[in-house]
Amino acid sequence: MYRLNVLYNQPTDPAAFDEYYFNTHIPLARKIPGLRHVSISKTEGLDGSTPDIYLVTTLDFDSKEAFGAGLGSPEGKATAADVPNFATGGVTMLGAELVTEDFN
Amino acid sequence: MYRLNVLYNQPTDPAAFDEYYFNTHIPLARKIPGLRHVSISKTEGLDGSTPDIYLVTTLDFDSKEAFGAGLGSPEGKATAADVPNFATGGVTMLGAELVTEDFN
Repeated sequence: MYRLNVLYNQPTDPAAFDEYYFNTHIPLARKIPGLRHVSISKTEGLDGSTPDIYLVTTLDFDSKEAFGAGLGSPEGKATAADVPNFATGGVTMLGAELVTEDFN
Repeated sequence: MYRLNVLYNQPTDPAAFDEYYFNTHIPLARKIPGLRHVSISKTEGLDGSTPDIYLVTTLDFDSKEAFGAGLGSPEGKATAADVPNFATGGVTMLGAELVTEDFN
């Protein structure tokens, strides 16, 4: 599997981010051909502080080739073009080979 | 579910990191009581560059309480104490509520 790790920094307005992200952006992303698995986790500092990263999303594809094809599709381009509409704190996208994924 | 997102920065010696991480650290981590699911992805820049973050690991527990109990256990403390032995580039740990996890 090939994973896109998406790290969203703290947005200027978290409630507005959430509203747009879950109701507009993720539905767009789910249309990307070849997308197999989605996880979204909302962070908090282990010591009660507010971390720089607000949300961590993983998007899994069968292979790097499938990921490339998905991103290059009209749906992939529409999803990428939508990111500036809500990611007011900035975002880091990391392609990654998924080397381990199992129940413990 | 409650997730610990662990973001390892580029280590000084990636081969030495991998050797220690997969053969010593992860076996230690897998002993943490309540750990349900593990994923590890090794990153690459989408444009061929080397990203600041080298490896992204997720460790899932049934709840925030189970996560706290696991981290507070002798196995959790041993795992945390082991991190400086290999994380030569530094590490960011983000506790997070897993709000979405599904097949697309």
